[in-house]
Amino acid sequence: MTPIGTARTPFAETKQIPKGPDAKHDAEGVIEIVPELEPGLLDIEGFSHLYVIWMFHRAEGFDLVGTPPSDDRPHGVFATRSPRRPNPIALTVVELLRREGPRLYVRGVDMLDGTPILDIKPYLSSVPADQVRRGWLAEAEARRKTSG
Amino acid sequence: MTPIGTARTPFAETKQIPKGPDAKHDAEGVIEIVPELEPGLLDIEGFSHLYVIWMFHRAEGFDLVGTPPSDDRPHGVFATRSPRRPNPIALTVVELLRREGPRLYVRGVDMLDGTPILDIKPYLSSVPADQVRRGWLAEAEARRKTSG
Repeated sequence: MTPIGTARTPFAETKQIPKGPDAKHDAEGVIEIVPELEPGLLDIEGFSHLYVIWMFHRAEGFDLVGTPPSDDRPHGVFATRSPRRPNPIALTVVELLRREGPRLYVRGVDMLDGTPILDIKPYLSSVPADQVRRGWLAEAEARRKTSG
Repeated sequence: MTPIGTARTPFAETKQIPKGPDAKHDAEGVIEIVPELEPGLLDIEGFSHLYVIWMFHRAEGFDLVGTPPSDDRPHGVFATRSPRRPNPIALTVVELLRREGPRLYVRGVDMLDGTPILDIKPYLSSVPADQVRRGWLAEAEARRKTSG
């Protein structure tokens, strides 16, 4: 695996990245593709949203079970977005605002500045919102509502 | 990167995998997680859909521009789901039907039988369908309608 580019984001430290139940993911950033790969962006402007696959490059090791910022109960790593996973791969859906050559200006970044990017794919379709069940996350939200 | 498991699917050869404009992705399969990692699946049953990140393990090399099965015009690799990409990483959204220990029974597989799985994440939210623009794919569909 060799990075295809680098993320430029407002986040120099992980603690700056919005996390937990009320996190908003509307930060803007730039995905800078390495110049030799720019032809691979042909026609990407037509897509409103992109999948960005990237590396948790500061993560070391993994925990099979852990308590995420959005709950006070532990869950399996594959049921969370924890960076401490067997393969430190991350996935973010971003909105493509515009392209300037090898630079993709996007909204919705949640990775550190300087993060290595592994792949970009078009976001093609959605599971209808009323068909998505959100497991422990929905339960944690319901508990907070009740207790709040 | 070390696989966390293996996909069991009905597809022994790539030509059997539904591709192109009218492809239906409702094939059922099983994601078998390696036994040591099973604790990482705790609470995954609560999610209706999962992201599965996997390797195009038979792909060799990449093309920056290529013509996908769903169009007769070339597009950049990052604007397609081509397996011939700089990092041979694939992403599929599947519906989780049930779990039996380390085995996830899912609908919507589009990978070869025996494919190495790199990661699994919960599918948490959708971009509203009316906000998704599908670029060249929508144009190719429109051209087919007009010509058909």
